[in-house]
Amino acid sequence: MQPMLQSYLQDTWVTPTATHESTSATDVRDAVTGDLICHVTSQGLDLAAAFEHARRSGSPALRALTFHQRADLLDAVAAAVRARREELYALSARAGATLLDARYDVDGGIRVLRDYATRARAELPDAPYLVEGPAERLARGEDFLGVHLCTPSPGLMLQVNAFNFPVWAPLEKLAQAVLAGMPTVVKPATPTAYLTEHLVRIVADAAVLPPGALQLVVGSVRPALDLIREQDVLSFTGSAATARTLRTHPNLVARSVRFNAEADSVNAIVLAPDVRPGSPLFAAFVREVVTEMTVKAGQKCTAIRRVLVPREHELTVLDALSAELAGVTVGNPAAEGVRMGAVVSLEQRDDVRRAVRTIAASGRLVHGDPDKVRVVDADPERGAFLDALLVSADPDAAAPHEVEPFGPAATVLAYRDTAHATDLVARGLGSLAASVVGDDLDWTAAFVQEAAPWHGRLHLLDSTNLAQTTGHGSPLPALRHGGPGRAGGGSELAGIRGVVDLMQRTALQASPRFLDSLRR
Amino acid sequence: MQPMLQSYLQDTWVTPTATHESTSATDVRDAVTGDLICHVTSQGLDLAAAFEHARRSGSPALRALTFHQRADLLDAVAAAVRARREELYALSARAGATLLDARYDVDGGIRVLRDYATRARAELPDAPYLVEGPAERLARGEDFLGVHLCTPSPGLMLQVNAFNFPVWAPLEKLAQAVLAGMPTVVKPATPTAYLTEHLVRIVADAAVLPPGALQLVVGSVRPALDLIREQDVLSFTGSAATARTLRTHPNLVARSVRFNAEADSVNAIVLAPDVRPGSPLFAAFVREVVTEMTVKAGQKCTAIRRVLVPREHELTVLDALSAELAGVTVGNPAAEGVRMGAVVSLEQRDDVRRAVRTIAASGRLVHGDPDKVRVVDADPERGAFLDALLVSADPDAAAPHEVEPFGPAATVLAYRDTAHATDLVARGLGSLAASVVGDDLDWTAAFVQEAAPWHGRLHLLDSTNLAQTTGHGSPLPALRHGGPGRAGGGSELAGIRGVVDLMQRTALQASPRFLDSLRR
Repeated sequence: MQPMLQSYLQDTWVTPTATHESTSATDVRDAVTGDLICHVTSQGLDLAAAFEHARRSGSPALRALTFHQRADLLDAVAAAVRARREELYALSARAGATLLDARYDVDGGIRVLRDYATRARAELPDAPYLVEGPAERLARGEDFLGVHLCTPSPGLMLQVNAFNFPVWAPLEKLAQAVLAGMPTVVKPATPTAYLTEHLVRIVADAAVLPPGALQLVVGSVRPALDLIREQDVLSFTGSAATARTLRTHPNLVARSVRFNAEADSVNAIVLAPDVRPGSPLFAAFVREVVTEMTVKAGQKCTAIRRVLVPREHELTVLDALSAELAGVTVGNPAAEGVRMGAVVSLEQRDDVRRAVRTIAASGRLVHGDPDKVRVVDADPERGAFLDALLVSADPDAAAPHEVEPFGPAATVLAYRDTAHATDLVARGLGSLAASVVGDDLDWTAAFVQEAAPWHGRLHLLDSTNLAQTTGHGSPLPALRHGGPGRAGGGSELAGIRGVVDLMQRTALQASPRFLDSLRR
Repeated sequence: MQPMLQSYLQDTWVTPTATHESTSATDVRDAVTGDLICHVTSQGLDLAAAFEHARRSGSPALRALTFHQRADLLDAVAAAVRARREELYALSARAGATLLDARYDVDGGIRVLRDYATRARAELPDAPYLVEGPAERLARGEDFLGVHLCTPSPGLMLQVNAFNFPVWAPLEKLAQAVLAGMPTVVKPATPTAYLTEHLVRIVADAAVLPPGALQLVVGSVRPALDLIREQDVLSFTGSAATARTLRTHPNLVARSVRFNAEADSVNAIVLAPDVRPGSPLFAAFVREVVTEMTVKAGQKCTAIRRVLVPREHELTVLDALSAELAGVTVGNPAAEGVRMGAVVSLEQRDDVRRAVRTIAASGRLVHGDPDKVRVVDADPERGAFLDALLVSADPDAAAPHEVEPFGPAATVLAYRDTAHATDLVARGLGSLAASVVGDDLDWTAAFVQEAAPWHGRLHLLDSTNLAQTTGHGSPLPALRHGGPGRAGGGSELAGIRGVVDLMQRTALQASPRFLDSLRR
């Protein structure tokens, strides 16, 4: 790897003009050792030329293909990444990820590509566009009909991604963009930009995509925002604050640029009143919470932050979670027996510490110490390590519903009754995902009707499906990913819907003879 | 009518506290005579209480109903408006509308209500929510399935409407909101607020909607914007400038409030190269342009502004349009033989004059005089009358593609070849609707593929359907209404899609037994 991280523009690797001493460059350090990995800057990159290349080369090439041919491209990308995934696993460890965490990111990304390729062949025609029918008669006669035509927008997708899924996120968005006939420019988050850079290198080396279909801009995204046009899409994953800045950017607003935001949220799990402690379902609930706290050291936008339990079970839940968390070994993800690695950076670690302290101010810390942690095979001061942190807080306080510690932390909140539970869950003001654990169909159905409008996804665990769940935190290609309000109001994945949402849906009023010619 | 226009809040008619001398009140004048009709202001209105009433009374009442029961409400509203539509016709004349114009607005609105009621019964279940299936297996076993659940958002729709469809627009949006289980607050544009006020009076008198389901705020919308929350929807129709202000409002941005914009656009009609002057299809093309210029005195957001014709037919087209326009009598819409009434206000008239002069600077005025017009049964100085104004301009100039005279005006632009025509149409940077007139299937199909991404609707006229068309300018309930880029990027109507788009779509991961209980 170059110490000055390169960008991939106009089908060529480009080194920014800034030196590492220049103020625009940011140092990226190993999450485990604190060693310097690379410098990141976009200074001197010709983004205008890159965007034009996407529009003039990538876009026509992809638009000319049928959905099935685009699906073949996804399979080719998946195969290329699969063949070199070990390189990505190794690099992931430097971001603090265990092998399991790396697989979640890398293999998860490959799976989305393959899933979308399969879906496209099954659900989309072997044509460059989609006619959504059936045709509807718009007048008394038979010769004036209406359908909707979904065509590729002659623009690009600019991805602005978060640090936590440097491989899955670009591939997940690429899958939908390629199928929609749209070239992609990826802008990774700085702390893990070197991972996305390596991913793009793997895909570029394989030379499976048309020229201009995939480019990479490492560094600041700001200069790119003035280059966006009416037919482009900005797909953002990250903080609510950055979402706000992007959403109100004058150029984007003036051109009504399609903007999709997926922001962090304060996701909940709810233990229904009917679940008895000691039951297999109770054990599944405990497992789910601990998994969400520890996988990727809790750095998932879908991770559980609020654990809602009936008041009578509060202490039992706290004991069960504490016991389970006591068995979580923290340390160098490369070392034997380590279950949880580091968070991505010392800044991130300090943010989590602050957030947990704020929440604990309305309650108490039940497990873990925000300020120190025993680690295996690493220096606890140079590496960004954190203990798993469990808080018990006043459910009616503000902080547990508003403050999101983006790390291995969760807060247990006791609810009085069903109405209190539905009120509490809505106090997240819009979340990506919530879980409900219980067997009582009526209770769950009533809860779901109140909670659904506040969530992008609801994960309902009961005694019949607890062994089959894919887990609270996992977005799946078949299902919508994105939530209302605080979660950003966006939508990704959702099967083929996610592809069509990137295209222009145009109402078409025409004669049967024209519509027939279109379907030929 | 009260000289100080009332608002309908918390199921009661309320008079604002401002006097007509206070600076916050705006005078609304008769478009034909210039006489004062009313003063408009929202000063002193308790909007916070009104919004709470919508959320606490209107929302639960509508959410508790099934889609079919909500459809019954739409039919009841349609019947109430139908019974008193003559009152709305009479009032429409004061806004400059002919009887035909008034019917377009009033009967059009009634039709949308009835159409949506019928669609809801046919396409939606007799349940308060919609389960979008089929269920998909998410794991190896049979017990962990995925569907999407569409539930009513427990918020309100705030309509901010344009002046040109004071009856159709609120009813069109109400239809979708009611079906989605959402109460509505209507904020009409000031120049025709008295028409929407009378519409709401008719609906309120009929007492067919639950308390809190429909409220009216006359006057400034600004104080309401801070009251919007995560579960609300802001549905805007109007200028791009106002869309920008609303879209970037800090409260809306912070809460990721769903915002739908339908802005004016510079819509085109394209005469294909194969159409021979003198043919019935050529005549249909001329009729379409003249209709779009004159219906509602050209004050439709979908109206044709750019007339793209092959260079060799330019003069023939200009002659044919001029001859047709010469037969358009302008004047008091109540008078015998008048085909075109007034635009809504003297300010609007002056805006159109300015816009036409700007466009004509790159060409010449072919028909009509922006500065004077012969009118029947009215004072041409006190009434907001305009001649039908036809311009011939340089197709490569900027103004014809950027400047929209929102009145009876259009510009003929000659294209050199197909590539030039597709380039020109895209220079509108996103439009609500375009028409293509021609019989050559290959030419039209090629044009459609290039033009579709820039349009919300394409209206294709050929020799087989010219007698059946519903017209370039008419949005239909079955079809998407809204376009990309300059047109605001929004989507309304589109059949049941427009209803579901107002609801929250939540991915649901659950066992078959739970999903069965939900479908019961």
